[in-house]
Formats: sequence, structure tokens, C-alpha cells
Amino acid sequence: MSTGNHDEAKPLWGGRFTGSVDEATQRFGASLDVDKRLWREDIAGSKAHARMLGRQGVLSSEDVESIVAGLDRVAGHIEAGEFDFEIDDEDIHMSIERNLTEDIGDAGKRLHTGRSRNDQVATDMHLAAKSMAKALQVQLVGLRATLIDKARANLDVVMPGYTHMQKAQPVLFSHHMLAYYWMFTRDFDRARSAEQAADVSPLGSAALAGTTYPLDRFFSARELGFADVYPNSLDAVSDRDYILDLLYACSVTMIHLSRLCEELIYWSTDEFSYIEMSDSYSTGSSIMPQKKNPDFAELTRGKTGRVVGDLVSMLVTMKSLPLAYNKDMQEDKEGVFDAVDTVCDCLACMSGMIRTLTVKKENMRQGANGGFMAATDLADYLVGKGMPFREAHEVVGSLVLECEKQGRTLQSLSVEELSGHCGLFGEDAPASVDIDNVVSRRTTFGGTAPSQVTEQLELAEQRLHQDGA
Amino acid sequence: MSTGNHDEAKPLWGGRFTGSVDEATQRFGASLDVDKRLWREDIAGSKAHARMLGRQGVLSSEDVESIVAGLDRVAGHIEAGEFDFEIDDEDIHMSIERNLTEDIGDAGKRLHTGRSRNDQVATDMHLAAKSMAKALQVQLVGLRATLIDKARANLDVVMPGYTHMQKAQPVLFSHHMLAYYWMFTRDFDRARSAEQAADVSPLGSAALAGTTYPLDRFFSARELGFADVYPNSLDAVSDRDYILDLLYACSVTMIHLSRLCEELIYWSTDEFSYIEMSDSYSTGSSIMPQKKNPDFAELTRGKTGRVVGDLVSMLVTMKSLPLAYNKDMQEDKEGVFDAVDTVCDCLACMSGMIRTLTVKKENMRQGANGGFMAATDLADYLVGKGMPFREAHEVVGSLVLECEKQGRTLQSLSVEELSGHCGLFGEDAPASVDIDNVVSRRTTFGGTAPSQVTEQLELAEQRLHQDGA
Amino acid sequence: MSTGNHDEAKPLWGGRFTGSVDEATQRFGASLDVDKRLWREDIAGSKAHARMLGRQGVLSSEDVESIVAGLDRVAGHIEAGEFDFEIDDEDIHMSIERNLTEDIGDAGKRLHTGRSRNDQVATDMHLAAKSMAKALQVQLVGLRATLIDKARANLDVVMPGYTHMQKAQPVLFSHHMLAYYWMFTRDFDRARSAEQAADVSPLGSAALAGTTYPLDRFFSARELGFADVYPNSLDAVSDRDYILDLLYACSVTMIHLSRLCEELIYWSTDEFSYIEMSDSYSTGSSIMPQKKNPDFAELTRGKTGRVVGDLVSMLVTMKSLPLAYNKDMQEDKEGVFDAVDTVCDCLACMSGMIRTLTVKKENMRQGANGGFMAATDLADYLVGKGMPFREAHEVVGSLVLECEKQGRTLQSLSVEELSGHCGLFGEDAPASVDIDNVVSRRTTFGGTAPSQVTEQLELAEQRLHQDGA
Amino acid sequence: MSTGNHDEAKPLWGGRFTGSVDEATQRFGASLDVDKRLWREDIAGSKAHARMLGRQGVLSSEDVESIVAGLDRVAGHIEAGEFDFEIDDEDIHMSIERNLTEDIGDAGKRLHTGRSRNDQVATDMHLAAKSMAKALQVQLVGLRATLIDKARANLDVVMPGYTHMQKAQPVLFSHHMLAYYWMFTRDFDRARSAEQAADVSPLGSAALAGTTYPLDRFFSARELGFADVYPNSLDAVSDRDYILDLLYACSVTMIHLSRLCEELIYWSTDEFSYIEMSDSYSTGSSIMPQKKNPDFAELTRGKTGRVVGDLVSMLVTMKSLPLAYNKDMQEDKEGVFDAVDTVCDCLACMSGMIRTLTVKKENMRQGANGGFMAATDLADYLVGKGMPFREAHEVVGSLVLECEKQGRTLQSLSVEELSGHCGLFGEDAPASVDIDNVVSRRTTFGGTAPSQVTEQLELAEQRLHQDGA
Repeated sequence: MSTGNHDEAKPLWGGRFTGSVDEATQRFGASLDVDKRLWREDIAGSKAHARMLGRQGVLSSEDVESIVAGLDRVAGHIEAGEFDFEIDDEDIHMSIERNLTEDIGDAGKRLHTGRSRNDQVATDMHLAAKSMAKALQVQLVGLRATLIDKARANLDVVMPGYTHMQKAQPVLFSHHMLAYYWMFTRDFDRARSAEQAADVSPLGSAALAGTTYPLDRFFSARELGFADVYPNSLDAVSDRDYILDLLYACSVTMIHLSRLCEELIYWSTDEFSYIEMSDSYSTGSSIMPQKKNPDFAELTRGKTGRVVGDLVSMLVTMKSLPLAYNKDMQEDKEGVFDAVDTVCDCLACMSGMIRTLTVKKENMRQGANGGFMAATDLADYLVGKGMPFREAHEVVGSLVLECEKQGRTLQSLSVEELSGHCGLFGEDAPASVDIDNVVSRRTTFGGTAPSQVTEQLELAEQRLHQDGA
Repeated sequence: MSTGNHDEAKPLWGGRFTGSVDEATQRFGASLDVDKRLWREDIAGSKAHARMLGRQGVLSSEDVESIVAGLDRVAGHIEAGEFDFEIDDEDIHMSIERNLTEDIGDAGKRLHTGRSRNDQVATDMHLAAKSMAKALQVQLVGLRATLIDKARANLDVVMPGYTHMQKAQPVLFSHHMLAYYWMFTRDFDRARSAEQAADVSPLGSAALAGTTYPLDRFFSARELGFADVYPNSLDAVSDRDYILDLLYACSVTMIHLSRLCEELIYWSTDEFSYIEMSDSYSTGSSIMPQKKNPDFAELTRGKTGRVVGDLVSMLVTMKSLPLAYNKDMQEDKEGVFDAVDTVCDCLACMSGMIRTLTVKKENMRQGANGGFMAATDLADYLVGKGMPFREAHEVVGSLVLECEKQGRTLQSLSVEELSGHCGLFGEDAPASVDIDNVVSRRTTFGGTAPSQVTEQLELAEQRLHQDGA
Repeated sequence: MSTGNHDEAKPLWGGRFTGSVDEATQRFGASLDVDKRLWREDIAGSKAHARMLGRQGVLSSEDVESIVAGLDRVAGHIEAGEFDFEIDDEDIHMSIERNLTEDIGDAGKRLHTGRSRNDQVATDMHLAAKSMAKALQVQLVGLRATLIDKARANLDVVMPGYTHMQKAQPVLFSHHMLAYYWMFTRDFDRARSAEQAADVSPLGSAALAGTTYPLDRFFSARELGFADVYPNSLDAVSDRDYILDLLYACSVTMIHLSRLCEELIYWSTDEFSYIEMSDSYSTGSSIMPQKKNPDFAELTRGKTGRVVGDLVSMLVTMKSLPLAYNKDMQEDKEGVFDAVDTVCDCLACMSGMIRTLTVKKENMRQGANGGFMAATDLADYLVGKGMPFREAHEVVGSLVLECEKQGRTLQSLSVEELSGHCGLFGEDAPASVDIDNVVSRRTTFGGTAPSQVTEQLELAEQRLHQDGA
Repeated sequence: MSTGNHDEAKPLWGGRFTGSVDEATQRFGASLDVDKRLWREDIAGSKAHARMLGRQGVLSSEDVESIVAGLDRVAGHIEAGEFDFEIDDEDIHMSIERNLTEDIGDAGKRLHTGRSRNDQVATDMHLAAKSMAKALQVQLVGLRATLIDKARANLDVVMPGYTHMQKAQPVLFSHHMLAYYWMFTRDFDRARSAEQAADVSPLGSAALAGTTYPLDRFFSARELGFADVYPNSLDAVSDRDYILDLLYACSVTMIHLSRLCEELIYWSTDEFSYIEMSDSYSTGSSIMPQKKNPDFAELTRGKTGRVVGDLVSMLVTMKSLPLAYNKDMQEDKEGVFDAVDTVCDCLACMSGMIRTLTVKKENMRQGANGGFMAATDLADYLVGKGMPFREAHEVVGSLVLECEKQGRTLQSLSVEELSGHCGLFGEDAPASVDIDNVVSRRTTFGGTAPSQVTEQLELAEQRLHQDGA
């Protein structure tokens, strides 16, 4: 028989919490697991610092050579997976310095001259933020290119355009894809702004006040590829705006992805049936072969929360912190690593989803014929004959009501029927409700007419080219 | 010479993003890393389900015995670290079922009868949430006990009470500690509410609609120690309120911790110098031995953002999701695991910090003598003599102004000086501004008088006892 | 001609910002606009305080009578819209006291004896929070009653149940409605918890430390209908948990509403066409009479952000605040007023939307016949004949694939065709895929079978009755 | 005696919720209260649209003149407070059009030709966002100018620099002020980016697909001062990025303000006593004249939550919205109006606070002498003599420990005592710990030496000049 409620006997899931306070304390302070990821940046920063110290005469050229060569060996070991991360190393920076000194001796100790952990870590994070912002741009360019390809390959596909999720006016499927293209283009701009925000060197600010060594902050900044240096040492070590900017860029990108996912998900329903997701981006059910769950679109939509949460975390952490450095700021890494990883994965997946999905043209066109979506054009026809707009709306409104009662479409009305309803309707009135005509006539700049969408595609391609594609 | 901007040549930190789309896709869908943590719950749930199927005649007693024994063997392997998590296993649930079937054959395949992954995973998470809520309660009880001990050990310590960070009225340090005791007591209540919210079994709801097998949902719920079962199968698989409740309980606890940390941090400044943190909960600077950074208090305060972010994540994820299950919901685990781990660690650390900190009684008392904090009592004295309160305020206000000009304290005024200022002041007036008297007279229930704080300590201990300490 | 860019000449929308710093300062500190709303609570609190002071011999019975009568007159004036809110009154509390004293003279000044603005305002907000939590419960009971009515009135309606927005298994529309019933029942519980959190009197805690007057905090608490009093004066004036609890209850309620809105919105699409919203809860387009925009469902979904934002606001505001009172806390009112108003309005609207919407039974049933949703039952049939579950899945999977290729439904297969595919299929196999049978057989507790849903309705009604309907 | 619990009898605060559903519904849909604020933008947008229609030959020049003159009359009436906002007007746009048509007749009806409410409202909000972003920049320039003035006026003031709220190294007060200058400069950049994001015209996109009228979108954009037009009509009406950008700029600005407020608040404590806030930005206590509560700094800090909440609101609202327009988006206004108003008020107040606060130089200097803050320099001295940095740290560490035991400062040590401790200390060693020397030697670019801070001031002024001050 059952031995009863196991929760009473022993917590199912309490294992993690049984550790002593000391274990908790150790786990708590440690950041090695998270900042391990910064090893490349840390070594690059140290090499630049050493070279600068040599150039300024603070270190001998022998010391500089020895340090640089030693750091390269450390890098080699880490890359080869042979590096010894000791549990007692508080963080990656101590870990590397300890290894270096074991290797090259006293010169290793001199590396930290005129530098503090504060500006060292800040430099590493600025470099990492730049790389992350760049990775984001690369993924955004990839998705934007995919959207352009999909739009170009489907220039003949008409679908219903929606407002309030109600059919409103027919649009080109390509036009719809390009709307997202521009959204992700703005995301690209935000990612680039975040990169520029990170492109400022804090190195040489020391703990908080600058240092007494004759450092050349501009030299080490150039060595590391920074465009500028912070003009205030307090600000240099306490600024986290560049991380917030990156988290914000990630958040808006996820909001855009969530909107696209939402559409992919309902277009995949049995009821809409406008697209078919590729097998690679769906999961099936072992029993219902027709059931293709758009899992990746759902997961991406779900991960929006995660990234927005990362942004909120950092805002809350920074609130009310006095200058200059506070340990609270150690929490700046995990969230932004998580956010950028998540967004990059989501963008790559979305690109794959879009590229491989099948557009069900016939279903889209059939959808576009429903819903009296040509009514506005019929009203515009009357305005063209001189009737004020608000009045034309009323005339067409009553006509649509009539059609609805009789179960007819606007396309089915004869010239006679139309002119019977309103004398201004002439021979050319039926053409005004043909769904292809309706789309073709929206030729204002940025409109959905094929001519405009073609022009828009060119603009989009030019812009993509500028952005490095 | 420098080889130039390494960012141009190769991203320092782009390694992670160079993978093919397929790798990204694989990483994306996988949840094994996160849900591995649910193995105990999954096995418990499967055993309960198997026993119930046996009792209802759906499985033979041989099958049930074989399944239960096989699951116990799997548990043994996992506990011993000998379990084979294959990369192809999508999640922990498939991993366990595959191993079971390899071990016991066809009976293993019959375990899943009348069950869906949806109600299986939901059951696991409900069990985990209960355990997490319990772990939270245990840590809260620990910190509350520490606060009581600290309060009892320092009953004679007077310190300034602040509003607007300005000295307002003297209070007992114990009274201040107990204010936090009650805050964490409310957190305990919220953690218990979250436990109750999770204490409802979804098992037997199948994919979304219930099942055709004659399951006894009440039996399997009892087996697993659940207090109740969901009365609606759709709700059972799509509800995540119990996770939100837990995240909310965690968030408010962190807000309370952040407030206590803030106080510990400024009490540790050179300027306040009211406490000294133990070495175990500080970090030093190799060069300034007097510099004890209250790192753990800062980190805890910083982690408030993380936990609030976890709550926001889940709220955003759940927004606008239709019934019943959507893949978005897979994102329900990582955040709550992270939040509960973080809060439990922070509570354990805070308990250690409070227990080991040194109260600098003399500095606190000296602080309490400054700031004219007895002024209200002097006004109350006059009200006792019949003067309306608002008027008494004015009389004392001008007296304080006079003292300030002359650099004197209220305690230094003689009876003559007082009565010269206002005829209602008598022989007993000076006693009204003695700082111990000021504290002792606040005898309203919940006030800071030692008599009241002693009574409050007893209330606090009773309540703690009720809560299982 | 156009004079060009008007932004250069004069900001279109800068009027608000041209004020002097002094105006900004005045606007900044003022809270009268917001706390005006607390007049009832403030008068109730003052009457209770006065009566208590009289009972304890601090005020004469004449003073008490005069104060109570005076406060009643003030209440009368405010209710009649004849009250004079002067711009110089910093807040509603000063406004009332000033008016009282102008009316009754010195006794008015004595009202504030043994009380501080801190515990006075805290008392008002606790009373207001209780009322707000109650209002929330009333609206939740209203919506839950509506859901029950709708479920009972549509017990014969079968619709597709979805997971991943893909058709999964047929369910009763009533079952779907009741899923929301239980979600809002949990919201009711959270609103009640928030009420209990607020049901504790801070009155008598004075500024932060208690007072020297012989107050009976239990008496004034009883007068005001509080269930308990705060045992710690510092906590009493600095606690905002009860407001957070209310904001959290509001937030989860909105998440639930957003999910229901999402479903109403896509059920209203031309593609699903499962419901028709009443005219009262839609807006039309002047030109497309068939276009009924589900505006109210969209607005409600949109307002989810607003309420979650209100919760985040308060969490951020409280982070890192030292004890006891800080002016930051003045920001506790606007957000919670806004959140509760919003949720109450949304609940009332939702109740109206549900009550008045038309269920398109035929469309739902037709939807339920598609999608091979009986496949699970066919597999269960085979399991009933002794086949292991995972194998049965495979057999049916290949059968479904066959049907799909031939454009047939499972319902159209003859006994011969079935038994040709698998020898275990017998005479009773076709009945297993009849959609009504599929629903009726899900008789596990909480399942979608009519028998179960009827039982669930009774449970729901009992619970509603307990909750005061 | 007491008539008992009034809550039982009648809710104190339920008045608002007793309205009928219809009232709730009406209140719910209405946006006039909020969008009234857009009247200037709406009229400007309509005038530009009319002129463009005239230029394109869609309207006659008489119509255009009549419309423009009529709109100018409407503007006059609104400005004069004589405009009739009718309760039945759904929003400000209908209100203005109705008034115009009552005034000028049929021409008024023709104004809406080729325009939809969707692009009309979007145009208004883009104009408003530009103005708001500009107002933000103006206030940021004001505060930055104040910080420069304060820094320049206090160039001789030395104060302790802190990390972990522990004294670390002395810095110039001006250096500290300038750290904030650069933070608000980045906020200025974000506000300008937000302005640029809004500087794109959606006018001419019509409902979602463009229109059939021969509109010149570039002409109307130029008329309204827009730098660009949206290249995609769907994107034009559904984009809310520019509002998010503005909310994000507001949020980071508030985070910066909260950090400065935190410092002002603890500098104002009795314990630090580094500054005295002006009476205009403090509130007193009627009884404790020495008590100056830094209310405005606290309120500003508290309002951080409000603005971050506004950002979160909009992110949540936009999550998962399909294209193109959904009513959810109507929620885009209140939050951003509230955020910008709040930040502008807070910036104006902060500017006033900084300008009027008194710097207590002597207290700051005295604070700077404590805490062994010259220890790093003593170590640097030894490094200058050839000792590796890490070793020098140890030598000085033991020296500081010795001083602390004896209650001495580093400044009090004689040459003999120093050289007794370590042979490398020479005659010039004492000068290395003089606090002014310590500050003066930090001459790295961006360091705290007066020479550097002076250079930094010039950079700051140049930048401010560029930004339009």
C-alpha cells in the first residue's frame, strides 16, 4: 500500500536547500560561472593595458613581452579546454591573473599596475556588450534578408488585411512581410545604438577616481577598438546605461517577434489555414499526423516575457544606487547574457521558420474575397464622381447591408443593380470592386499596390545593403 | 605593435552565435537542462498514477509492481549519478520513460495509459511548487528566529528612529528588528498561500478534456499528498496561477530584504557606524584593512531586480494566451526555480548577517541624543497641562529654534529656563526629555517602550512556534 | 503657403512645460487631487479616534460630541458638493481638519492628539484598500455568475478544444466557460486575501514609535471594523504589502481577462465565426456593416499592461526604502486606485460581453467534426482490446494519414475498412469516433462529459453561493 | 455608542463601483479626457492634409481655404477655453471635425478624404511624441547647465569618494557633480533618438493599406516638419516603437535621478551632513525646526517606479498584437503623457534643488580625511620605488592596521616611522598622503585632479553648447 504523503516525510525537491549557510554564502558571492564567459575580453583588455604601460615607460619592454606572451598561452589553454578554473578563484579575472603569475612570475604581478578590478571588469563588459550588440545586428540582418526573399517570391499573393482582427482591406502578402522588415530594421538601429553606447573605454579610471600613473587612456582605448573614452572616472565605473540600452533593444525585438509569432500561430490554425509551417519548425503528435503544433513560434512568443523580465531586473537593480561602484552591479551580467542569447536564438529560428513555411496562396485569396473589403473603394468611386466622403460611406453602407441580407458579394453586382442603388454608379463601377484592382489602386507611397511594394522592396534592399548584408 | 581593433577581425564574444540554425533550433526546443530538476516529482507522479491504474483495474498488479520497482531503480540511478540523460530525450519525462521501458519492457509502455504529457508535467510542477514554497517557509522561519534572538539580546539598546532618513524619535533597536520580523511573517503567509495554491492535483485531466479510462483522480491525488483536485480539466492543464503566486511571494520577500539591506549598508558607513558586519559577510580590500564592504547586503539588494524580473517575465508570458496548453508555458520553470533559489540563498545569508553582526550600542545611543528627538514629548507635556496639541507644537518649536541657535540640547535646559519660556512647564518637565524616558513612555500597544517590546517579543515567539519553528 | 515646420517656431505641445519651476514644485508636492478620494475614510478614522480619546479620558465628552457632529457636517458638505477644497491645503486630511476647526473651534485642534499624519493616512488607506478589495470581489462574483449562466444555457454545445491553437479534442462550450469560472474564483480568493492583509489597524502608531497617550488601539480598530491591529508601530506606518497584494490580485485578474479576450477576439473573426458579440460591446465601421470590431475585448486586453505596470511601479518604489516613513510612499495611491478602477470596469464589461454574446452552435459543432479529433478515442478503443498505448497510437496514426490522403473523416470509415486496417477493430468501433460519444465518454472527474460538466456546475454554484452571490 | 462596523452597513469607498454596466461601458470606451491634449496636433495635421489635397487637385482651393480658416477658428476657441467638448464625441478628432462642419458646412466633410482615423491619430501622436521628446531635452539641458554651474562654483571642495558606500578615495565634489552631468547627457541623447524615431510621418497610410487618392505623403510630411515618411502603410499605423523609445528614455532618466536623490538624501542626514537643502525643496515638521525632510528628493526617487511602470505597461500592451491596428493600442497615450510630465517635473525640481543647496565644504573635507583613503597612494609611492604592486599593497596594509590600532591617521606618520616600516619610504613619503595631493595627482584623463576636472568642465560646456543651451 501507499506509504502516504511523501511530502510529510521528506521534501521531494528540497535537496538544494539543505546546504549549510556557508555553502549558500560561497555560492552567493561566486561569479565565476557567469563571468567565465568574459575570458576573451579579459585577456584582450590586459594585453592592451600592458602595452600601454610599456609605451608610457611604467613597465619595461621585457615585462610587456612576457605578459603578452603569457596571456596568449592562457588564451590557448582556455580555448583548448585545458584551463584550470579553481573554485577558490572568485572570478575569471583573478583566475587568469593567478595562472599568468604562476607562468611568468613577478611580471604577472606588475600587470595590475594603475588598474583596479572596477575598471578592468567594466572594460571587459563594454567589449562584451559591443560583441553582443553586433551579434544581434547580424541576426537581424539575417531575418530581414529572409523577409525580403519571402516577399519577393510571393509578389502575386493577395491576402486580407486586418484591423481588430476583422477583415478590413486586401493587401499583398509581401506588403505584410515588409511591415515586419521595417520593424526589424528599427531593431537593428537600436542594436547599433546600444553598440555605440558600449563603444567607450572605461580603462584607466581605476577604482573610481583615476590614478597617479601616467596612463594613456586613449592609447589603450584604440588598442581595444573603442571609439571614445569616458571623460569622468566615477561615471566610467558606475555606468550601466549601455547594458540597459542593449536589454531595451532586445526587449523591443522580442515584442516584434511576439507579434509575428502570434500571426504565424493563427495563420496555422485549421480555421485560417493561410500557411503551413515546415516540419523542422513544428512538432507533431504521434497520433494526429495532421496536427502540426507551431511550437517554435509559441516558444519565441513565450520568451518575450523572459527578455522583458531581464530589462526590468536591471532597471530595478540600478534604482537608487549611490555612486560609484556597489556590489549590486555584479548582477549586470547574467540577465544581459540571457537576453542576447535568447533573442539571437529566436531570430535565427524565426528566419528559419519564415524561409521554410509554405504560403497557401489560394486560401489567402479566397479569404480576401470575403468580408466586403472592397466597400471603401466603392465609396471612393462615388467621391470620384463628386459626392462628399461621409455621404458616399452611407450609400455604400446600405448597399453592403442589402448584399449581406441576400448573401451576395459586391463583386456579383451588375452595373444595373449598382446604378439602381445610386445614379452615380456607371459602367466602370464593377471594376472598382475587383480584388486585384482594389489592391492595385493603392498607389500612395508605402501603399499596398504591386507597383509600390516593388519600389518598397528596392528601398528595403538598399537599406539592407547599407547595414552590411 | 598592436594588431589593431580585434573586433574587426573576429568577434571577441561571438563564438556562441556562430552555430548553424539547426543547432540553435535544437538548443531552443530542449528543456532537459531545466526540467532535469523535476526527476523526483516525475517518478513520484508516475508511481501514483501506476498504483491508481492498478487499483482501478486498468493495469494488472504485476504491471504495477514492475513499474514501481523499475521507477525506484531509475531513481536510484539518478541519485547515484549513473543515469544516462541522452541528448535526444526531449525532456526529463521522456528520459525516465525510455529508461524504464528499456528496463521492464512492455509494462513500461502501459504506464502512460490515461495520461498525457500535459497533465504529467503539470503534476510535476505542482509538486515542485509545493516543495519550493515549503523551502521558502523554512528559510523565512530561520530568519525570523534570528531576528527574535537579536532583538532579545539587545533589549537595552536605544537608537534614533527615522522618517525621511531624518532623526525623528528614539526607538529600541529591538523594536526596529521586530518590524522586520513582522514583514517576514507576512512573507511566510504569502509563501504558505502559494503552497496551498499548488496543492491541487491536475493528474487525470489528460491532454485537456479528461479521459475515457476510469481513473480515480482523488486516489492519485491522495497518494501524492495533494489536498484537492482541479474540478475542470482545461483549467488544470493551463493554470499557472500557483507559479505566479510563488513568484509574487518571492518578490515581496526580496523587497523586504532590500529595505533591510539598505539599512545595514548605511549603518555600516563610517558616518553612521551603528553596526559592524562580521568578516564572513563582508569583503575587504587588500590595502585598506578598515574597509569592510558589506558585499552580501549589496548583492542581496541587487538581486531584488532579478526576482522582480522573474515575476514580470511570467506575467508577460501568460498575457493573452488562449486555452488550453500552449508551448509558451514551457517558460514557466526557469524563472521560478531561479527566483526561489535566489530568495532562499538571500534569506540564509541575511540570517547569517544578522546573527553575526555587532551592534555598536554606544554609537546608537549617542545618535539618539542628537536631533531634538524629545521635542514631541515636550509638546505632549504641555498638552497634558491642558494646551491644545497644535499650540503646544508652536511653543516647543520656538524653544527648539532657540536651543539650536545656542548650540544646546533640550536635555540641558533647566526648569527655570523652561518655565521662563512657557509658564506651564513645571519641576517634572526636564524628565520628559530624558531619552530613556522618551522611549519608555511610548506604551501604546505596538509602541517602542521596553514593556511593549517585551510583550511584542512574546507574541512574535508564539507566532513563530505556530509556524513550525 | 505653409510657413514650414511649426516645431521650429513653437512647440505644438510644449505648453505644459513652460511653467516656472515654482509651479512645477507646487504641482509636484500636491496630493489633494489624488487623496480627495479618501474623504470618507478620513472622516470615519477621525470619528473613531475621537470616540476612543473620549473613552480613555483624553478628550471630554463635550469635545467628542462636538467633533463627531462637526465631522458629520463636513461629510454632508462634501457629499453635497459644497465643500471648499482650498489650493493651499496640502492634502485631504488638512482640508478636513481646517474646515472642522473653522466650524467647531478649539475642540477641532484637539482631535489630532496622540495621532500623527503617518498613522492617520495609513488608516485611511487601509480602509480604502478593504473597500477596494471588496469591490473587486463583488465584480468577480458578478462575472462568475454570468459564466455559470452562460454555461448552463449552452450545455448542448460541442466545440473544438485546442492546444497550441490546433484542434485537439472536442469539449463542451460550457466546460470551456467553466474553466474561466475557476480562474476568476482564484482571483476572488486573492482579492479576499488582499482584503485580509488590509484588515489591520495602524491607528495609534503615531509617527513611528507609538505615543505617550493612553490610547486603546483595539477600541478604535473595532470602531472601524478592523479585524486586528499591527503589533509594531514602525511596521504599521511603513507597511505597503497590503497595497502590493491588491495590485497583484488585480494583475492576475487582468491576465485571466486577457486570455478570455484573446479567445473572444479570434472566435469573432470571419474565419472562426464561433460567436457574435452584441452591438453594445462592439463598434462598427460606417461603411462595412458586417464589420463588428470587438473593441471592448481589445481594450480590456490592452489594459492588462496598465495594471501590470501599476504593480511594477509599486514594487520599484518600495525597493530599498529604509524604515520608517519616506515621502516616496506617497506614490502608493494613484496606481492602486487606477488598477482597481480599471479591473472593476473590465470585469463589469466582460460580464456584459459574455451575457450578451450569441453562441453560434452550428459553427462550433462543424468545427468539432474536423481535425481528426476522435483519433485518441480510436487508440483508446484498441487499448481496451489489450494493445499497449504507444502501439495503438501508431496504428491510428497511419489510419489518420490514410484518411487525410483520401480526404475522408474518421467518422466515414466502415467497420470493414477499420478491421481491414487492424484486426482488433470490431462492430462497436465506428461509435467510438462519433463526436458526441467522444465528449460523453470523458467522465473522469473534471472531464468534459455532460455528466461531469453538470456536476461541475453544481460545485461552481455552491462555491459562488459561499462567496456571497 | 458606536454603531459598529460601517463596512458591514455600506462600503466606505464603493461609490465609484455602484454604477450600472452601461456607465462603466461608456467610461470605458471614451478617450476624450486623455486625447483632448492632442488638439494642437490634430488641427496641424488636418491643415497639412487639406493643403496637400488642394495641391493634388483633390480639393478645390476654396475648400482648402475654408477648411484652414475654420480650423484656425476652432483652435482659437479651444485656446480661449470656449470650445464645446460634447460628451457624445468619442474623441478629440471627432469633436474638432464636428465643430468644423457646423461652422463651414460640406467642405468640412470633405476634409477626411483619403484619410482614416488610424493614420490621423497616428500622425497626431507622432507630432506629440516629438514635442514631448523636445521638452525632455530642454529640461535635461537645464539640469546639465545647473550641474556645470554647481561644479564650477565648488572647484575647491574635496569630499570622500565611495565604493560600497565605504570611503574609498577622496574626490572633488565637482567631479562627482560632473559624473551626473554625463549621465544626463546620455539621457539627452536617448531623448533625441526618441524624437528621431517619432520624426516619420504616417499620414497618407489611411486605414492600413494606403489609399486610391493621389496623395503626396512627402508634401504633407514637410508641411508638418517631419524628416521622413513611413515606407509601409501597415507598419505606419501599427508602429508604437517611437512611444516605447520615449518611455525608455524617461525610465533611464528616472533611474539616474533616483541615484542622485539617494545621495542627496543621505548627504542630508544628521550623520553625513554634507549638504543643506534649501527650504523651497524641503518640508519641515511643525515641532522640530531642525528637521528638514528632503521631500522632493524622496518624491522624485519614488516616482521612478511610476515611470518604469509606464514603460512596462506599454511593453505588455504591445506583446502579441497582430497587425495592423487593434484597439489595445488606444492605451498608448496616458502612460507616455504621464511619464513625460513626471520626468519633466522631476528634472525641473532637481535643477532647483541642486542650484539652491548649500555645500558644507568643511564637513566634506573632514570626511575626506578619515578612512585611510590615502593608502593607495602610499602603495603607489612604493611601486614608484620599484616594488611590485601586489607586494606594496601588503606593506601598506600592515601599516594601516598598525595606525588603526593606535588610533592614528596616515597623515600623522613621520618620515622615520614610515622608513622604519619599510626602507623604501623616503623624505617625500608624507607628502604622498596629504589629501589635496592625493586628489591632485589623479591626472589621468577623466581623473579627479583639479587640472583634469577643469578640462572636463570645458568639454561639458562645449557639449552643452552643441545641445542647444
